[in-house]
Formats: sequence, structure tokens, C-alpha cells
Amino acid sequence: MAIDFTLEPELVELRDRTAEFVRATVLPAEAEMLRGPGVPDDTLRRTLQRAARHAGVFGPTVPQELGGLGLDLRGQSVVLEEAGYCLLGPLALHCAAPDEGNILMLEKVADTAQRDRYLKPLAAGSVRSCFAMTEPAPGAGSDPSQLKTVARRTAGGWALSGRKWFITGADGAAFAIVMARTNAETGTATAPEATMFLVPADTPGFRVVRHVPSLDQGFTGGHCEIELEGCEVGDDAVLGEVGKGFAYAQVRLAPARLTHCMRWLGLARRAHELSLGYAAERTAFGSRLGELGMVQQQLADSEIDLAASRALIREAAWVLDQGRSGKHESSVTKTFTAEAVGRIVDRAVQVCGALGISGDLPLSAYLREVRPFRIYDGPSETHRWSIARRALRAAATKEPNR
Amino acid sequence: MAIDFTLEPELVELRDRTAEFVRATVLPAEAEMLRGPGVPDDTLRRTLQRAARHAGVFGPTVPQELGGLGLDLRGQSVVLEEAGYCLLGPLALHCAAPDEGNILMLEKVADTAQRDRYLKPLAAGSVRSCFAMTEPAPGAGSDPSQLKTVARRTAGGWALSGRKWFITGADGAAFAIVMARTNAETGTATAPEATMFLVPADTPGFRVVRHVPSLDQGFTGGHCEIELEGCEVGDDAVLGEVGKGFAYAQVRLAPARLTHCMRWLGLARRAHELSLGYAAERTAFGSRLGELGMVQQQLADSEIDLAASRALIREAAWVLDQGRSGKHESSVTKTFTAEAVGRIVDRAVQVCGALGISGDLPLSAYLREVRPFRIYDGPSETHRWSIARRALRAAATKEPNR
Amino acid sequence: MAIDFTLEPELVELRDRTAEFVRATVLPAEAEMLRGPGVPDDTLRRTLQRAARHAGVFGPTVPQELGGLGLDLRGQSVVLEEAGYCLLGPLALHCAAPDEGNILMLEKVADTAQRDRYLKPLAAGSVRSCFAMTEPAPGAGSDPSQLKTVARRTAGGWALSGRKWFITGADGAAFAIVMARTNAETGTATAPEATMFLVPADTPGFRVVRHVPSLDQGFTGGHCEIELEGCEVGDDAVLGEVGKGFAYAQVRLAPARLTHCMRWLGLARRAHELSLGYAAERTAFGSRLGELGMVQQQLADSEIDLAASRALIREAAWVLDQGRSGKHESSVTKTFTAEAVGRIVDRAVQVCGALGISGDLPLSAYLREVRPFRIYDGPSETHRWSIARRALRAAATKEPNR
Amino acid sequence: MAIDFTLEPELVELRDRTAEFVRATVLPAEAEMLRGPGVPDDTLRRTLQRAARHAGVFGPTVPQELGGLGLDLRGQSVVLEEAGYCLLGPLALHCAAPDEGNILMLEKVADTAQRDRYLKPLAAGSVRSCFAMTEPAPGAGSDPSQLKTVARRTAGGWALSGRKWFITGADGAAFAIVMARTNAETGTATAPEATMFLVPADTPGFRVVRHVPSLDQGFTGGHCEIELEGCEVGDDAVLGEVGKGFAYAQVRLAPARLTHCMRWLGLARRAHELSLGYAAERTAFGSRLGELGMVQQQLADSEIDLAASRALIREAAWVLDQGRSGKHESSVTKTFTAEAVGRIVDRAVQVCGALGISGDLPLSAYLREVRPFRIYDGPSETHRWSIARRALRAAATKEPNR
Repeated sequence: MAIDFTLEPELVELRDRTAEFVRATVLPAEAEMLRGPGVPDDTLRRTLQRAARHAGVFGPTVPQELGGLGLDLRGQSVVLEEAGYCLLGPLALHCAAPDEGNILMLEKVADTAQRDRYLKPLAAGSVRSCFAMTEPAPGAGSDPSQLKTVARRTAGGWALSGRKWFITGADGAAFAIVMARTNAETGTATAPEATMFLVPADTPGFRVVRHVPSLDQGFTGGHCEIELEGCEVGDDAVLGEVGKGFAYAQVRLAPARLTHCMRWLGLARRAHELSLGYAAERTAFGSRLGELGMVQQQLADSEIDLAASRALIREAAWVLDQGRSGKHESSVTKTFTAEAVGRIVDRAVQVCGALGISGDLPLSAYLREVRPFRIYDGPSETHRWSIARRALRAAATKEPNR
Repeated sequence: MAIDFTLEPELVELRDRTAEFVRATVLPAEAEMLRGPGVPDDTLRRTLQRAARHAGVFGPTVPQELGGLGLDLRGQSVVLEEAGYCLLGPLALHCAAPDEGNILMLEKVADTAQRDRYLKPLAAGSVRSCFAMTEPAPGAGSDPSQLKTVARRTAGGWALSGRKWFITGADGAAFAIVMARTNAETGTATAPEATMFLVPADTPGFRVVRHVPSLDQGFTGGHCEIELEGCEVGDDAVLGEVGKGFAYAQVRLAPARLTHCMRWLGLARRAHELSLGYAAERTAFGSRLGELGMVQQQLADSEIDLAASRALIREAAWVLDQGRSGKHESSVTKTFTAEAVGRIVDRAVQVCGALGISGDLPLSAYLREVRPFRIYDGPSETHRWSIARRALRAAATKEPNR
Repeated sequence: MAIDFTLEPELVELRDRTAEFVRATVLPAEAEMLRGPGVPDDTLRRTLQRAARHAGVFGPTVPQELGGLGLDLRGQSVVLEEAGYCLLGPLALHCAAPDEGNILMLEKVADTAQRDRYLKPLAAGSVRSCFAMTEPAPGAGSDPSQLKTVARRTAGGWALSGRKWFITGADGAAFAIVMARTNAETGTATAPEATMFLVPADTPGFRVVRHVPSLDQGFTGGHCEIELEGCEVGDDAVLGEVGKGFAYAQVRLAPARLTHCMRWLGLARRAHELSLGYAAERTAFGSRLGELGMVQQQLADSEIDLAASRALIREAAWVLDQGRSGKHESSVTKTFTAEAVGRIVDRAVQVCGALGISGDLPLSAYLREVRPFRIYDGPSETHRWSIARRALRAAATKEPNR
Repeated sequence: MAIDFTLEPELVELRDRTAEFVRATVLPAEAEMLRGPGVPDDTLRRTLQRAARHAGVFGPTVPQELGGLGLDLRGQSVVLEEAGYCLLGPLALHCAAPDEGNILMLEKVADTAQRDRYLKPLAAGSVRSCFAMTEPAPGAGSDPSQLKTVARRTAGGWALSGRKWFITGADGAAFAIVMARTNAETGTATAPEATMFLVPADTPGFRVVRHVPSLDQGFTGGHCEIELEGCEVGDDAVLGEVGKGFAYAQVRLAPARLTHCMRWLGLARRAHELSLGYAAERTAFGSRLGELGMVQQQLADSEIDLAASRALIREAAWVLDQGRSGKHESSVTKTFTAEAVGRIVDRAVQVCGALGISGDLPLSAYLREVRPFRIYDGPSETHRWSIARRALRAAATKEPNR
């Protein structure tokens, strides 16, 4: 009951075990993947998850009753940083997006039948899922209220039609959580009512049209375009209540942002450590790079960025663990960390020079993976917008904004 | 025994009492000072400290046995931010530099006689002190090892000679803690042995030559130049042991950096709140400023900077409270916070436009006060240098740098 | 008729003469002023202008028929940088704001009687002037259309009433150019019609209420608040045509922005040179500062900022010299240069450490003077707004935006 | 003979013709390449170069007597920006690295036989070349003096041995310009004497070992690793004089840096225009993106970066066209432009959100291509180092550094 950054001994033990597992098992797999296809497929995923289970590090974010480790967000902040130390770590530990966030949401909203049919196999890693929200312009993007996909009432169910775009993990997913308007006839453009539907991938009318090529390549199942046409589902496909889609998305959002931060922080740390190693060895102009002031400056700035990101993440995790919404804290943390992570990896590349650009180190792959984080889960601009408005409101009502 | 940001109820109570005292009593005094002389003199200091004592908020960093509140650094991080909310707050609460750091060091190093003679009146606020380390070029600056002031053995004591520069609070201080070389004859240029001396201001040969004009004006007693010529002191003037000056300076350094951060964070928060208030009222181009994206961006960035600074400060405070040296953490925190505070106040000025530049708000005064913080207590470059070297060493020895 | 950066020999000669005059005559005066009052008064102004006249460098921006050197903007870009090398240089050469811009505007808009009465003595440096546009909130600030000062028709003239704020040079000015609404009864809030009036300072009802205290102190006559109450002027006080006030303000704006950039560029160069000199001498940690990478980085960044600012200024000057409006170019140049100048002076302070903060160098005075430049003559936000809108329009109409 | 940014009518005509050619012919080829292999092969190169020849835009940097347009650097600054508007433009116009720089150097250094054998077919685009300087650690990188490849005297020639790394365009090049030490036996580690050799790719002992995978993919022939083992060449393979390799590299360096800047500036402009188009169309939160302040800020910053880069490039081009070395100017320009280009493309991606990340726009491909520019041709740190040292020297000798 006081400011404390102590980690419980069991957490330290789990952290170290995770770190050891990642170094011994996952890093070699990453190296092989980067030399080869560049993309982790389901075979690799299954192999790694088996190994993680064996090492006792599977499912740090998965509730214990579903076979996971059931850590709270503070515990996740410690373990997921270690998982993220390698591109494939989160996949191996089964704490990667989008499944990780989907499990969380299903855990909170799904009914018993849905738990059995969707949540349990997902939590076990038997299947993958996707979250089908974003749409091509002029549909839902940064602004979800522009939702264009529509669900129309049928006898005993709903018919979905629309187009989803950049849906991570869609190819090979067993099911999608599809966000659709359920008041298209009556609603106005500015106030759509959205509902979430659980749609098995083999439902007629549900079609993965293509992989959208993308700067990042680390997600199993890619980022896909999905066509929904005459896609009929029963009433049992409705997740939670009709019309509460946006509210449920919020449930998923704040913690999902934080787990993103935790994972990417780990990757940034690895990038930084690679540059430290290089700077300690490589010489130029009669010095080791690490003795040159402009290199030191970059190394120091990355130390600072790592420390500040971690401190923000832990505080936001604590706020959410207290049962508070943590919207403000998670926006602040996500915005800072996404930019910090980008800076850190960029500096690591710069310190390593042409070697950093080359595929002889994983740094340029990391650079590709982390860039989108300033856009995914709310672009920095959207977060800044809500941070500012919240600060203005707090100032107006004289609530201390501490 | 887990990551926790909870504040104990008594601390919350003290924080709120401090905040209330600062708003009710100290802010009006600040406004009057800024309209008038611009510099807080000893009369103002005494008046404010009396009021603080009355309000039960005097001496948050002063040990209880010396009449203070005896907070640990975590507690200080909470209370000193509130004190710093106003330029005069730290002075009022008697937790301003340089006395605050000097009390800390004397508490650790002074012998019984020195405690009675120097520490007790200083802790009580009856007198002021100064820390005389820096010298004009080519003497001690960012690099203390360039120390040129010399103490030579005399019969039964020491004769000090040299010149000190930019000594904060010197004019009106009852005594100075003077750093001088005690191996000038035998020592080499690169490895001076330094000793600290307690020198009463009325010692013959100790002379405050002038106030060095300075961008910042908030320190009682200014930044002064001191001449030491034939300044003779007894053996009882040696603070601690001969030759341990640099080691004792380290004792003072890490916590003093942090309390600086805490205080300036408070001032930055006030600057930010002033800009929030202005942005909520002032209109341009058909909107309130607070509705304009470029203003929102600045407000959001300041929210982020405040949160990251605070999180770093609290973690570093915790590290020091554990009895660890916290050199790395305090360097990271000081570097980030000094720059963040500068950015925050600068943005507040920018948002308020010409009003921010004018003396009709205190913002331009704040801008002047916070700029030097990137230089005082180790310029950012020196901190980055040691952060980088420490990171390189840690990487080399495979110690996790978590 | 090709890309060319050659300076004509006469211009080189004038540049060098100006530089020599500034170094020999104006820099010592600056040093004395900074040691003393901190503000240049009219006596100093007259003395310096006499010397400048004697050295043949008086009035670089003043038309030849009015006794000046009549340089075009490209020539001004070369000479005003040299003038700006010292805080008092522009005053000495009579190319300081606000007179410099007022002369330009009067030259374009004043009728014969107004030229005789106002322009000639102003051009000769016999009197000073001010430009009374900005108002306290909620009046005209960044958004001039919020103009609240009103001119009402009287028999044979106009009665002005309102309040002006932050009017540079007002105290001691012989006359003010006052911007006032002339359609207050009929106009709507969103489309005020503005007119400029030439108001002698001794007109009854025109009153300089106070000096607004300000971060910068370099302008003779300060930044003042002016009260207009029952201030009656004749029809001959109307500058140009009724209702064209905003259009005339535009005439003044683009070139005035550029001459600001030229002058501040000179000051930034001096700050940079001071830091180069210090870095070449001062040692720390066994090296000269100039051999330390983090210092080199700052010095190099300032070199880059100086070069980019100068290149932008010269191109914008050329655009205006071609008779084109140069709105876009002057906005781009002003925004970049204002921020670059701030960075350069800030880096110079940082490199010089506590000495940079102290008044023993003029750097901290420069820091105070240049900060407002990001706000004066259109804050960076307003310029970015118009730059972006212009770019969007150009893209829409497929005009190349080269 | 005065500051002038006017473009001669013929240059304007060539610029517009180039722009038209790029839009009509090269952009479609780029789109096809990005959808397909991602790498431009020699077939595509030949096709595009034929079309460029047909359009009269082939060889802007190639001397007229070698069949090119023979533009000076100012002319190149105008035309190469248009060429760079598309990834394949420089290849199509035959002004891409590394051939463009190699032609320049051969033109200055090659003897008659070498001109016939190497330069003429290269200038005509019949063959490609590469410049083999950099080596794997601990060899030549940012610091060329760490050169490890050795040329040993044989009867009538030289035997080369060593390893080159990241040699752009090596796969498929007809010949390489290989930098090797010719004083390996006698020379010291710190002062290697380097010589350039013209080595046909089919010389026994010259072997392209592999493509080094790389973040950027736009160079025909990739970035390769080359092994030299018992690679024997005659005396006629020596380019220029023995021992002058570093001096010749300097010949190539300053203009090659500038042409890089010109080309990348064009690509940055295209990225920016794509984001302008998107911002003008896409809506969010009830506005077009282009009406949102945070988006406007990014668009404006890119306008400023484009303008400043262009102004610096043109001035540096003029300096070199005057026959001056332009080392300082080209370092300043390269450092600024490389960073500006990176910022511009990054902002364009950010404005376009997930679409910017996706391959549905070329922006993420651009992001990959421009990142290395901060490293290639001297990393920013090396340039800053020499800029600072030059500034310090100039300050010391009181040469004005204008």
C-alpha cells in the first residue's frame, strides 16, 4: 500500500523462465524464419506453442480456468516484455494480437455456448481468430462510427454484408468477430448502432478476398480483405447484446493497447541490445563506436525511452488492475510507447549502419514491424485528440489531473 | 510487495494540504514577487516558512528529529510536486535547493559539533547555506575533476584559496560547503583529491565578489562568485574525512537530482494548467483554441511528458528508498524530466501566444527558471554519457539491464 | 537567368562594411546595454544611428529617395543578417521592427501629405512609430478578424475607441498606425471591415496605459497597452482607403516576416559563433568540448539550421523581388527560421553550460529575445495552418507546388 | 550575377518533359513492379531506358559527348527531382546510383583505353557497374581508412584479395571499381594507401557470393557480398594513379551525395502528394482529414522540409558548379535532406494510416527505400562530425563561415 516496484518472487521466476525460453527456443526460430519465408505460419505457431506449454510459459494472459497463467496486467507487463524480446515470442506464448485481445473480450462477453464453441479452443491455441472492424474508405478506420458493414434481420438471424479491410490474422482464422451496423435502416449516419457477430470462417458468404500487402509481416494469417455478401448467421452469433458493439470494443481496447506496448517494448529492448553489442565491438576513426559521443547519445536516449515506456506501462497496468477504466493512462502510454519504440529501433539501425539495414541482423525486420504501431490501435493523432480533450475537461471541472 | 502506485492516506492528506497551502498562500506571494522585485528575499522566505510551519507542511525532506516531516523519497515525490507548483513553494516549505541537498549531506556526514553548529539552524530555516563547487574556466564545471581551488595545510588547519563561480544562494548564506583540493602539491592534474570544508561566511578571506547575472532569478541569494584568499579554517571545518569530497558529493547528488525533478515537475504542471485554462477560453478562427488540432497536440504532448516524468521519478525514488545507489535511474530521470519540463513550459507559452510571452502570466518567468535545469546538476550531455557507458558495460557483462 | 547565389561586388562591400561597423561600434554598445539597463533607449538609438549614417550603412531597407540605401529584399537578406549579428544592430542601421515595416507600408499607401508628415521623419529616424493591431482577449490576436477597436464616423472625421495590447515601440512613438473596424454598426462579427488610421501620439484620447512586461526586452519603447477613448481624428488620418485595412496589413506582412528572419538569423549566427569559441577553448573530461561528439552534434545541427534558414530566406526574398506575393514562401521561411533560430540559440546556451545561462555572455539575453519570434508575426501554428491549406488547394487543382 | 532562382526556359521545358515522361511511362511500371517482384531487373531497365531515350530525357547527368544531356548540377537538381518522383525514374533516365557516380568519376580519371572499354558502354546504358568500397567489420565502413582488401604486386599487374560487402548493383554488373590497399606490406594501420582497380566481373577470382538481404530493394543488382581471391588484373586496371584511391573517392563523393538528395527529394514529394490527395478525400470524426489540425501540421512540416531541402540542394549545386569543392555544403545538404526525406515519407504514411502501411499505396515501399539514405554515402553522424570540425576550424581562423 505504497509506491512499490517490487516484483513478487514467483513473477521474477516466471519472467526469467520466459526470458530463458525465448532465448533458447524462440530466437533460433526467428532467425530461421527471417532467413526463410519471413512470415510465421501455423505449423511454426503450433510447434512453438507446444514448446511453450512444455516450458510452463504458455498463456500468460489466458485465464487459469482456460488453461493459462492468468496474470494480472502488472504481471503481464513483466512477462510480455520478455515474450516480445523476439518477434515470435508472443506467438509462442499465445499472447499475440489479435487472439490475446479476443480471448479477453470473449471471456467478458460470450455466453456459455459461445465459450464452449469459440473461446475454449481459442484459449487453448487450437484455432486462431480475427477481429473484423476496419473497412476500406469511406468506412470505419480511425473513426469507428463510419461503420458501413450492415447486419439485416432475417427470419431467426442476421444477414451480413460489407467489406472489411486489413483484418489481421484472417487467413486461416477459424472464426471472425465481425462488427456491423444493426440500425442501418433506422439509424443516422452519425450515430450507428453496432453489434458484434461471431462468424465461423466457413460460413457461406464470408470470404477472405486477398492478403493486403503490408510493411509488417509478423502476423500469422496476414492482414486480409474480407467480403461479406449474403452471409447469414443465427441469433446465437450475436456476441453479448445487440447494439453494444462499440461498448464491447472498448472493453477490448485499453488492455489490448497495453499488451501491445509490453510486447513491442521487449522488441525495442532487443534492438537496443543488438546495437549495444555492435557499438562495443565495431571501430571507426580510431575508437570503438561506443566511445563516440553521437553514438552514446543514441544509446542513452534509447535507455531513457525504454525506462519511460516501462514506467508508464506499469503504472497504466496498475490502474487497470484496480478496476478503473484507464482510458487516459492507456492512451498516454500507447502514444508514448509507440513512438519511443519506433525511435529505439530506428536508433539501433542507425548505430549499426549498413549492417542494421541489411538482413544480417534482424533490425530492419524489426523496423518494419514496429512502424505500424503508431497507427494500429488508434493512431497517435486520435489518442492525442482524446488526451487533450480529457485534459481540457478535467481542467474545466477543476478535477485534479494527477 | 508488488507493483503498486497507491498512496497511503496520510500522504494523500499531506499532499492535499500542501496543495491547498500553496494555492492559498504561496501563489499570491509569487504573483506579488513577479510584479515587484522578481527575486525572493530572506524576509519573504521567513514569512512563508512561518506560514508553512503553521500549516504543518514545513520541512518535507527534513528528518523528523530535526523538526521536519521526514518523508522518504517516494513521499517527497508526491509532496514536492505540489510545492513546486509555485516558484516560491519549495522555499516556503524549506525544501528548496541548495539547502535541501545540504541538509541531506550534513545529516549523513557531519560530526556532532558540526550538526549543532551548522545542521540544526539550517534544518530549522534560521540560516541559509551554499554549496561551493563550480569554478570559472578552466576549473571545475561539468567535470568536477578539474577542481582548482586549493586547501593547504597550516598549523592546526587549512588555508583555502581559489575562486568559485555560480554558487547558488551564496549572498546571505551563513556558511558555505567549499570543495577544495587537498593534494595540490602531490596530486596529479587528472586525479585531484578533494575535501569539503564548512566555511562560515564571515571567515576572513571568504568574500562574495558579485552576483553573476543569470537567466533564472528564483533563488534567494542569487548565483554568486566567491573569492577565497588566505581563508583560514581549523581542522574542525573538515566535513567528514579529508580526501572524500567527491564521494560525499555523490551522496548529495542522486537524491538532489530527484528532488529537483519533483519540484520542476510541479511548476511544469502549473504552466500546463494555465495553458489549458487559456485554451478553454480564448477563441481564434471561429473556435476555442482547445478545439484546434495543433493546440490539442501540444496539450496532449504535455500530458504525456508530465505522466512519463512522474512515473520515472517515482520509480527512481523507490530505487533510492531501497538503499540502492540509483545512479542510473536518477540520471535517466533527471535527463528526461529536465527536457520534458522545458518542453512543457515552452508549449504552455506557445499556446498562450503573446500573453504567454508577457508578464501578465507567470509563464515567461517559468520559462526562464526551468531552462537552466538542463544544465544544473549535470548537463544532459554528461548524464547521457554516463547512461551510455553504463549500458555498454551492462551489455558487456550480460547483466540484464532491466 | 539561372540559379545563382553570387553576390554583386557592391553588395559584398556593403555587407563587409556593415559587419565591420557592427563589430566595432554596435557590439560594445550591446555589451554596455546588457550590463546596464537592458533596454535600448532613444538616446542610444540616436547615437548609434548617427554612427551608422557616418559609416554609410544607415537605412538598408529605406528607399533611396527617402535617404536610405534602397536595397531589394535579396540585398536586405545579406545586409540585415549582418545587422542582426548584434541585438542593437537593426536599431543602429534603422532597419528594426516596427519602423522598418511601417516605412514600407507608408511608402506604398500614404498620400502626399501623409508622406510629408509621417513617412519622411520616420524614414530619417527623427521619430519612431508603432503598429497598433493586437488587442487583449477576446480581441484581435492571431486572428485579426476578431478586431474589437471601433472607428465611428463623426462630422469630418472619426472617433476611435478600444484597447490595444502588446504594441511594440508605443512608448515614445510619435504616431501609431491604428487598425479599427469601420463597419461596427453594420458589419457582422465574422466579416469586420478594417481601416488604418494615422494617430499622433499626442491626440487627446490616445493613451499609453502601461508597459506590458515581457520576456524580450530589446525593443525601444517596449510592448505597451494603449487605450483609445474618444480619440478623434480627421479624415486625413485614414491611411489609404476606408475598409482596406486588412489588405494593407498584408502588404506589410510578407516582407516584414522576412526581414525578421534575416535579423534573427544574424543573432543566431552570433550565438553559434560564441559557442564555437567556447567549445574550442573549454575542456572537460580530458578533451576540449569541441572534440566531444555530443557537442559536435549540436554545433553541426546549428550549422545546418543556419544554412537552411539562409537558403530559404534568399529564395523567398527573390520571389518577392519578382513582384510575386510570396505568401507561401514567406510563411514557410518564417516558420522554419523562427524555430531554427530558437534551436540554435538554445544549443549555444547548452554548449556553454552555466556560462551560457549567466549574463557573462549575451546568450541568455538572446534566448529571451528570440523565443517570441515563434509567436510574433503569426505563430507557427497559424502559418502551418495556411501552409497546409494552400498545399491542399494546390494539390486539388493539380498546380505543381514547386 | 545576383541571387537568382530563375530556371532557364530550356530547363523548364526539360523538367516538364521529364515530369510528363515519369508520370506517363514510369509510374505505371513502378506500380507493376511493386505488385510483382519488388525489384527492377535488367529487362525492365532496358525497356525504360529505351523509352527515356525516345522521350529525349535519357542521361541528364551523362556528358553530351557520351550521349547524355550534360546538365550541370543546378540543372540536375531540377531534372533529377522529377526523375526521383518515381522509384524507377532514375533508372529509366540512367541517372541512378551507382552508375551515375561511377560515370562521373571515370569521366574525370579514366585513361583513353579505360574510357573506351568501360566508360562508353556504361554511359550508354549497355552495361552496369558497381563501386566496391565497403567491407564487413572490421573493414572499411563509415571509416574508409579501415580498408582491409589488399592488392599485391605481381609480374605485370596486381593480385587482389579481400571481401567486399553491401556492394550495390554488383550482381549483373559488367565491372567493379574495387578499392584496395596497395601499401599493405609497408603501410601502417592508420594510414593505408588505397588504389582503385577496374575489375571485369568475369575476372577469375572475382566472385559475387550472395545478395545481402536489405530493407531497401530498389537497386538493380541488389547489395552484394563479393569475394576477391587470387583475383589478378593487369596494370591497365589501375584507375588513375596508384595510391590516389581516397582522393578519387572524394571526387565522386560530393556530387554523388547531391544527386542522391535530388532523387530522394522527388520521391519525398511524391509521398507528400499522395498524402495530400488522401487527406483531401478521407473523412474521420466529421471532417476531411485535411481539415484536422494535427494532419495539417504534418502536411505543413513536409512542405517546409521539401522547401528547405530544395533550397539547400540548389545552393550546394551552385557551389559545386563554381568549381569549388563544396564539401561543407554537400555534407550539410546531405545530412538535412536525408533526415527531411525520412520525415516526409514517414508523415505521409502516418497521414494515410493503415493504407499507408499497406501495399495498396507505394508509401511503405518508399519508407523502406529512403531509410538507408541516412546511412549510405556517409551516415549522418560522420557528416555532423566533419561539419562541426570544419566549423570549429573556421571559427579558429576567423574565416567567416557564411
